[in-house]
Amino acid sequence: DMTGLDGLVWLRGDVARVRAGTNMLALDRALRAKGRELRMFPSTKRTATIGGFVCGGSGGIGSVTWGGLRAPGNLLATRVVTMEDEPRAVELRGPDTRIVNHAYGTTGFVTELELPVEPAVDWCDMAVAFPDLAQAARFAHLLATQTGLQKKLVSVMDCRLLPYFAPLRNRVPAGRALVILMMAPAAIEPTRALIAREHGELCYSCNTAEAEDDPGHVPLYELTWNHTTLQVLKKDRSYTYLQTGFPPADALARVAALAAQFPDELLTHLEFLPMEGGMSCAGLPVIRFTDSARLDKIMAAHDAAGISVANPHVYTIEDGGAHRGLSPDLAADKRRFDPAGLLNPGKMRSFEALAGAPNGAERAAES
Amino acid sequence: DMTGLDGLVWLRGDVARVRAGTNMLALDRALRAKGRELRMFPSTKRTATIGGFVCGGSGGIGSVTWGGLRAPGNLLATRVVTMEDEPRAVELRGPDTRIVNHAYGTTGFVTELELPVEPAVDWCDMAVAFPDLAQAARFAHLLATQTGLQKKLVSVMDCRLLPYFAPLRNRVPAGRALVILMMAPAAIEPTRALIAREHGELCYSCNTAEAEDDPGHVPLYELTWNHTTLQVLKKDRSYTYLQTGFPPADALARVAALAAQFPDELLTHLEFLPMEGGMSCAGLPVIRFTDSARLDKIMAAHDAAGISVANPHVYTIEDGGAHRGLSPDLAADKRRFDPAGLLNPGKMRSFEALAGAPNGAERAAES
Repeated sequence: DMTGLDGLVWLRGDVARVRAGTNMLALDRALRAKGRELRMFPSTKRTATIGGFVCGGSGGIGSVTWGGLRAPGNLLATRVVTMEDEPRAVELRGPDTRIVNHAYGTTGFVTELELPVEPAVDWCDMAVAFPDLAQAARFAHLLATQTGLQKKLVSVMDCRLLPYFAPLRNRVPAGRALVILMMAPAAIEPTRALIAREHGELCYSCNTAEAEDDPGHVPLYELTWNHTTLQVLKKDRSYTYLQTGFPPADALARVAALAAQFPDELLTHLEFLPMEGGMSCAGLPVIRFTDSARLDKIMAAHDAAGISVANPHVYTIEDGGAHRGLSPDLAADKRRFDPAGLLNPGKMRSFEALAGAPNGAERAAES
Repeated sequence: DMTGLDGLVWLRGDVARVRAGTNMLALDRALRAKGRELRMFPSTKRTATIGGFVCGGSGGIGSVTWGGLRAPGNLLATRVVTMEDEPRAVELRGPDTRIVNHAYGTTGFVTELELPVEPAVDWCDMAVAFPDLAQAARFAHLLATQTGLQKKLVSVMDCRLLPYFAPLRNRVPAGRALVILMMAPAAIEPTRALIAREHGELCYSCNTAEAEDDPGHVPLYELTWNHTTLQVLKKDRSYTYLQTGFPPADALARVAALAAQFPDELLTHLEFLPMEGGMSCAGLPVIRFTDSARLDKIMAAHDAAGISVANPHVYTIEDGGAHRGLSPDLAADKRRFDPAGLLNPGKMRSFEALAGAPNGAERAAES
């Protein structure tokens, strides 16, 4: 529990230094009081700590503009306390931060983070309905690539997710695929024009901060990213999910093909963000669970279609598929900072293999 | 001359309403005093009016992030006074603004504009040298696609342009291709890391606003966009230029092929900006002028390589190639607002053809 280690260390222009245990909603409010806001946050903003987000997450609300957490410039520095006999506090800057970024705390205690923060924007939540998923996805892609429209979130949801979305289920006609947006004030009028041109129906709009501050309301970002699955699981435990990555080329065609291949089991959920120099999306499809063999088959179908799957149902960093963007030699980094392998044991398979024997042997090899 | 019609009408959050004759440097300073800045401006900011920029320009400094002036959301509304017997003031909003956007005043007097304005950023000018043009272009493309780095300008310059660039010529070793950047404060450290990783040499950096305010300095944006050619022409009138557009696919390969095809005549100058959903660039190559037959040959080579040319050496809107993004039926729009064809006569070929006869006949047809 890092929540005791909280608060803003300093704010200098467009950079903030924060303690790792700071709650993200509190942090965003503290920044807003100074005219700034978080560049990126997870759907779990109300409960997440900034350190937990960086160590365990890959992106979130804001990624449609700023890319993933690991994109250069989204994490400027971290302070890490090592798990050595005599702990050291190490400042990692720039590319060196990849040692802890998304490494689930295996490489040390992250105590402080330095992040870019944006001028506060008075965002507007919008929910737009389309007759089918393909039209919703096409509109979302179009909107995500509109460079003149400032945005924070572009999500697409299968019509079958709507019943689980309390703030929207009475406002959106049944059977419609949904696009969820957060747009800057100057973008609202042109976004409405684009919705009309593309034959969408704006079913709901609300100031994001007002929805966030009002106990009777829910900001729409709490229906997106990892919260989508959570909204379903709250009502029905027979579902699970996957995390997928669509290459920019033919992303929409691949989305349609996958949805068609598993019409009864795969409830499409897309989060748009730039990848590989183009606009693409990550999928967090909600899956009607049968058994693990069937889940393997669904994952194999993704693989065959050229869609990467970061399986959230495995324990180690490497098997989850998150290793790619990390330090190229994460186990060696862990040896430097946690020679005895005491942090999050079993989480890093490549380290366990390296160590071979219990902690003592590893420690002897290091010294 | 519209410069008497100047000043800010209002500023509400991220939207400003301005009079068309407002000088852009004065406007940007007025906005900065209120914590805002222009989303986009031309290299002629010191002398340009905002109305002139919108009526005659297609993009500029800021386009690497926000795209062209015609991208939805970059111009929210305009007020146009018609050239009818009884002039009307017409408010055009959203997509309707395309009637005047880049139409060179042929469709009416633009008197006011409504534009998104950004939170003011304390930009940093950077000039980075590379051994050759290909490396400079590759770095510029890489930097332009870095979603985590907030930027306002990414330009590439052939080494032979350097002697014409007074602020840089004594700081950059001869023979090096140049990348010119404007970066936000939080992006400076990660940009330096990227420059080092890509073996570039940071030869110059300076706060943009300080360079702009100091009579002894020049902000680097005054070496870019249309000013690049101007810097050359000030010293040598035997040059001319072209305006070209590279499709995102294989943009860098096309740049290299063109440069190789005309090694002695074509001095590459690229401005990076998003196009067709991907990152690409516009070229404003400086051309050593021989005769118009040779210039036609150079343009034909661009055409053969799939690179669009908006020829700045012709008079009419249509022949210049700027018509594509305009109203699909610009001549009909002109009939509505300027039935007698009194504004900028001869500039719109499609209208002249429609009119056929002198002004009287056209007026008769309209009434």
